[in-house]
Amino acid sequence: MDRNEVTRKILSAKVAKGIKWSEVAKKIGLSKEWTTAACLGQMTLNAKQAKTIGKLFDLDENEIAWLQVVPYKGSLPTAVPTDPLIYRFYELINVYGTTFKELIHEEFGDGIMSAIDFNMDLTREPDPKGDRVKIVMSGKFLSYKTY
Amino acid sequence: MDRNEVTRKILSAKVAKGIKWSEVAKKIGLSKEWTTAACLGQMTLNAKQAKTIGKLFDLDENEIAWLQVVPYKGSLPTAVPTDPLIYRFYELINVYGTTFKELIHEEFGDGIMSAIDFNMDLTREPDPKGDRVKIVMSGKFLSYKTY
Amino acid sequence: MDRNEVTRKILSAKVAKGIKWSEVAKKIGLSKEWTTAACLGQMTLNAKQAKTIGKLFDLDENEIAWLQVVPYKGSLPTAVPTDPLIYRFYELINVYGTTFKELIHEEFGDGIMSAIDFNMDLTREPDPKGDRVKIVMSGKFLSYKTY
Amino acid sequence: MDRNEVTRKILSAKVAKGIKWSEVAKKIGLSKEWTTAACLGQMTLNAKQAKTIGKLFDLDENEIAWLQVVPYKGSLPTAVPTDPLIYRFYELINVYGTTFKELIHEEFGDGIMSAIDFNMDLTREPDPKGDRVKIVMSGKFLSYKTY
Amino acid sequence: MDRNEVTRKILSAKVAKGIKWSEVAKKIGLSKEWTTAACLGQMTLNAKQAKTIGKLFDLDENEIAWLQVVPYKGSLPTAVPTDPLIYRFYELINVYGTTFKELIHEEFGDGIMSAIDFNMDLTREPDPKGDRVKIVMSGKFLSYKTY
Amino acid sequence: MDRNEVTRKILSAKVAKGIKWSEVAKKIGLSKEWTTAACLGQMTLNAKQAKTIGKLFDLDENEIAWLQVVPYKGSLPTAVPTDPLIYRFYELINVYGTTFKELIHEEFGDGIMSAIDFNMDLTREPDPKGDRVKIVMSGKFLSYKTY
Amino acid sequence: MDRNEVTRKILSAKVAKGIKWSEVAKKIGLSKEWTTAACLGQMTLNAKQAKTIGKLFDLDENEIAWLQVVPYKGSLPTAVPTDPLIYRFYELINVYGTTFKELIHEEFGDGIMSAIDFNMDLTREPDPKGDRVKIVMSGKFLSYKTY
Amino acid sequence: MDRNEVTRKILSAKVAKGIKWSEVAKKIGLSKEWTTAACLGQMTLNAKQAKTIGKLFDLDENEIAWLQVVPYKGSLPTAVPTDPLIYRFYELINVYGTTFKELIHEEFGDGIMSAIDFNMDLTREPDPKGDRVKIVMSGKFLSYKTY
Amino acid sequence: MDRNEVTRKILSAKVAKGIKWSEVAKKIGLSKEWTTAACLGQMTLNAKQAKTIGKLFDLDENEIAWLQVVPYKGSLPTAVPTDPLIYRFYELINVYGTTFKELIHEEFGDGIMSAIDFNMDLTREPDPKGDRVKIVMSGKFLSYKTY
Amino acid sequence: MDRNEVTRKILSAKVAKGIKWSEVAKKIGLSKEWTTAACLGQMTLNAKQAKTIGKLFDLDENEIAWLQVVPYKGSLPTAVPTDPLIYRFYELINVYGTTFKELIHEEFGDGIMSAIDFNMDLTREPDPKGDRVKIVMSGKFLSYKTY
Repeated sequence: MDRNEVTRKILSAKVAKGIKWSEVAKKIGLSKEWTTAACLGQMTLNAKQAKTIGKLFDLDENEIAWLQVVPYKGSLPTAVPTDPLIYRFYELINVYGTTFKELIHEEFGDGIMSAIDFNMDLTREPDPKGDRVKIVMSGKFLSYKTY
Repeated sequence: MDRNEVTRKILSAKVAKGIKWSEVAKKIGLSKEWTTAACLGQMTLNAKQAKTIGKLFDLDENEIAWLQVVPYKGSLPTAVPTDPLIYRFYELINVYGTTFKELIHEEFGDGIMSAIDFNMDLTREPDPKGDRVKIVMSGKFLSYKTY
Repeated sequence: MDRNEVTRKILSAKVAKGIKWSEVAKKIGLSKEWTTAACLGQMTLNAKQAKTIGKLFDLDENEIAWLQVVPYKGSLPTAVPTDPLIYRFYELINVYGTTFKELIHEEFGDGIMSAIDFNMDLTREPDPKGDRVKIVMSGKFLSYKTY
Repeated sequence: MDRNEVTRKILSAKVAKGIKWSEVAKKIGLSKEWTTAACLGQMTLNAKQAKTIGKLFDLDENEIAWLQVVPYKGSLPTAVPTDPLIYRFYELINVYGTTFKELIHEEFGDGIMSAIDFNMDLTREPDPKGDRVKIVMSGKFLSYKTY
Repeated sequence: MDRNEVTRKILSAKVAKGIKWSEVAKKIGLSKEWTTAACLGQMTLNAKQAKTIGKLFDLDENEIAWLQVVPYKGSLPTAVPTDPLIYRFYELINVYGTTFKELIHEEFGDGIMSAIDFNMDLTREPDPKGDRVKIVMSGKFLSYKTY
Repeated sequence: MDRNEVTRKILSAKVAKGIKWSEVAKKIGLSKEWTTAACLGQMTLNAKQAKTIGKLFDLDENEIAWLQVVPYKGSLPTAVPTDPLIYRFYELINVYGTTFKELIHEEFGDGIMSAIDFNMDLTREPDPKGDRVKIVMSGKFLSYKTY
Repeated sequence: MDRNEVTRKILSAKVAKGIKWSEVAKKIGLSKEWTTAACLGQMTLNAKQAKTIGKLFDLDENEIAWLQVVPYKGSLPTAVPTDPLIYRFYELINVYGTTFKELIHEEFGDGIMSAIDFNMDLTREPDPKGDRVKIVMSGKFLSYKTY
Repeated sequence: MDRNEVTRKILSAKVAKGIKWSEVAKKIGLSKEWTTAACLGQMTLNAKQAKTIGKLFDLDENEIAWLQVVPYKGSLPTAVPTDPLIYRFYELINVYGTTFKELIHEEFGDGIMSAIDFNMDLTREPDPKGDRVKIVMSGKFLSYKTY
Repeated sequence: MDRNEVTRKILSAKVAKGIKWSEVAKKIGLSKEWTTAACLGQMTLNAKQAKTIGKLFDLDENEIAWLQVVPYKGSLPTAVPTDPLIYRFYELINVYGTTFKELIHEEFGDGIMSAIDFNMDLTREPDPKGDRVKIVMSGKFLSYKTY
Repeated sequence: MDRNEVTRKILSAKVAKGIKWSEVAKKIGLSKEWTTAACLGQMTLNAKQAKTIGKLFDLDENEIAWLQVVPYKGSLPTAVPTDPLIYRFYELINVYGTTFKELIHEEFGDGIMSAIDFNMDLTREPDPKGDRVKIVMSGKFLSYKTY
């Protein structure tokens, strides 16, 4: 058994039971973003969170144990994603990647935006011309230092 | 001559003259995000914008004409970016891509967040534990329809 | 279980029962193009459509539930398709891609043809020198805007 | 000198002179689709066509000769195109490729749609909800035969 | 079940029973080249041929049905083949590809040799210095036309 | 200077002077297949052949010397060729590769068809339904031996 | 069943029984190099050899039949091998490949060293500074000829 | 300037002057294998060797200095080499790689054959059935140790 | 059965039993670095070590035998690792690789740091600004020699 | 002009003048590791450092300005490095990557070792059996947090 099998089992149970990610998030008292990533095998749960998730998705003891092991991360099957929704994000990096780089360096100097000390919030932005997806990302700036 | 050469000339002039992207943005009255992407060869300028940019960076008539031609987009030299700052964004997609997918579908149904009818805002978020990079993205939701 | 297994099961039942895609399309009252894509795991069905499809291909409750979940899209096993019929379309993009780009930009300005707000119709075009495949594609033009 | 250099020179002259593809097409009395593909180095011109194109774009004798040589085709710099407009066509193949395959085989049996005995027409389709790009493709069906 | 499984089953039965491809070809009255390609999952059989093949290799009704479905073609596991015999053909294209192109264009003009309206014959060519493999390929020339 | 530059110069002179490969072949008294491959940088010429070629294409002493150096072979810019004519040959290997393998082994046992001790002949095959390209390949069979 | 499964079964039995390749080689009276390659699915055995191997590794009749079928060759899971021992050989080709080429051409003219009419011998070379691996390779030179 | 340019200059001079690698080797008193690799930019020369090489190939002071700088190694333009002579060596690793691994481990235990503490000798092996290329490689065995 | 299955079984047992790598290391009296690599299928154990490991993780006789066979090494599923922790090490090589090269050559001359005669130690380095990961690597320098 | 050209110019001047990286480091009062990375185009210098470096390597005003611009990082020409010294580091990640992951997680929980808040020290470790390369790396541990 490995974490991927647990992820597949969670997804299978989710479809069979018609559970929503936002409900799962409420059950463990965390954001829907982190909770979904965790259920999809990208984050590590503590014992209590794992137990709650296990109950919701009918996992056994062993599967609950796997939820508490740090997973090998990376949720996509190919280097360039084929799914249209996910590809649009890849395209944003391809088109705007050097822009991100220039503007962050202009504001902060040499360094990066952390993808670890990071959180995000995804919401619906009502708009008369068609609702929009709004994503707010926040990552700590880490600067390169001389030594 | 092609657009890449114009981009290189702009970058060269920017270093030599010490111009900031935020100043360029003010000169053409648009956001720093769109302006930088345009100067880096990812967006198309109108005649007036191109003239202003041309003046700032000492471009000749031909180069100014190229700024008004729709470019072949994509600003990165490799499919998986090697630059640490840009890679962090790629990693976010790798780790959170399926999470983006699940949550957008849960909220909106089948469809995508547009990368064309899209805008973003990148700012410094002061934080006592270390300032953060805050990026707000907004893209129109486009739904798949039956036919 | 996941959507790929449902797709394989549909294909298996289709061969065993000798069902035609055009018949399936009639049963759910939609185009044969959309219907085939949906059965091949690329589109999301609503409850009623899924039930009809399920009946046709002997799917159980769980499999019918999977048809209503937004799938991870992308139907090809390799980045450059090896199947001769599908490769010809890839070749058209390779040979005519920059032509598409030039002509759409000349007519519409900077933007794209949507692959989401999109439909198509594939028919036989009788021709004394040999019948032809005629494909009519229609996708909404989405323009890049300044901000 | 090779054909790529001639293509680059044509594109450079086009920008400098502000010529439109549709005007070029009229000058040689052919469709704008074929004409653009030819100018972008994907088709072979005859002596008269080459001379007309040469005059329009200020090409010398040698460059005009190159237009009449069959080119090494393929207009894209990467296997998966990075330009958003061209990528949407690649995505259509990824999502609908197996659908094209199923429907063509259901109608015609085993074989392919020719990408050689092929023509297309790209037009603007007015639509109150936003104009659409309409592409009509027509390719001869070629069937596999036993021997 | 899919066509690959039928191919594997045919190969397994062939080894167990010691059948030769040339014998199979005789049974269905076609060339050994087409017959082998069909048994290896690259061609589509009609009902009568499929029944004969099925009998030879102990296939059940369902497997015989799959033989009559147009397969997803491409018989090699990697883009550059690793098997020495097959690689030699790849090498011929790498070394002689541009030669094929030049000579076909010199003789026929712009177009291609069809890989669909195609047949071939593979025979042993006795030679005192060591027998040779002789392959005669014949494909219809298809020309690019203006439109 | 290297062999690639000599190849480019030969191609350039060929276009400018309107020379045909078959004429070049006659001048050095060899087949058009070998001659074209040699001029395209895939074969090594002897002193006399190189001199004749040099004269035809206006090469200088140094360039003539390079024609006599064994070249780094491989005439294609990508692993999977993008040019439609050359791709068709690649497709033949993809579709028929395992067939070549099975039939050669059935006839000869374990071994390969040499791509070195090899020759070929490419001709036009008149056909009322459209002329055909006929290619006859002959390569020595080399068998694996135990030791 | 296919040859890969037979290879896996041989390796499994070898570990369980603690058999050495050199002992296997003795049993069939051939070199340890050829024998090992054959057991690893890269060479074809005759009936008698296959029977001996089958007895040693507890193979059944069907598996013994597979050993006599010419295998699809290539023993490595990735184009650039990850295993350190095997990578060192890849590195030798990367560093010395052009040297091999220059020296063989200087000695023999244009052609190759056959990888088919080939044998090798791998031995321990005692050395006070640390024993060495000595590999002697011998392959027939095959020359390119004009035609 | 970098080492690649020096390599190109050496090769150019070698062709122009008709120098042989074995003569170069004699001039610096080392094997033809090491000498060729060094001239092709894979090894580092000392001051005296560099001066001798410089004189032979008409290098200037700067170029001679570059010969004494450790180069970035790797002499092949693609991961899988396209040149037939060099590919044969790649094929040997693909076919015999796991055999090398098994036999070295059987003789020496876990470890590798060094590609650094390594030398080789390439000679012509006269053979009535056609001369052979003989390559003797010798590399120190390095064992993995526990710690 | 193969080594990968043994690795998966060890990982599964580790999660189920809550064993720590440092405890495993103590049991066989070696460093936690080597022990972990061995349990993950990268190193070869002797009979006694294998028995101890087997007991800890409930392996059977056959699985214990596999631990003593030299494994095919390489623990990552993709050439560029997707897991953020492992990617950081890849990034270090991408950013600092040429620096490693320059400094080692400046100190030692032409050669490499052995990855075989190598050991490492990974510890927690307390730091008031946040604890740090400290890795000490030590590899024997191996120099290229002339011959 | 871009940063790569400045890097090439620095390397060229270093060879011509025989400067050592350790001397450069002393001139700007920083470690040889950081200094070398900076000169190789991977770090950003401040005005004073850039001036000192500029003087040492005869850079003009513009080139000195480029040293103060944050570079697009990544110093290697291929995803899997071909240079033997740099490859050994890649191999360490391939063999020990999952070990790094397990041990860091066992000690610190879920998170990464920063490659930004990072420093290292490379020294010669004298050893009677052959001197060793010792590398001490220290990177801040960054933990994933719930939100």
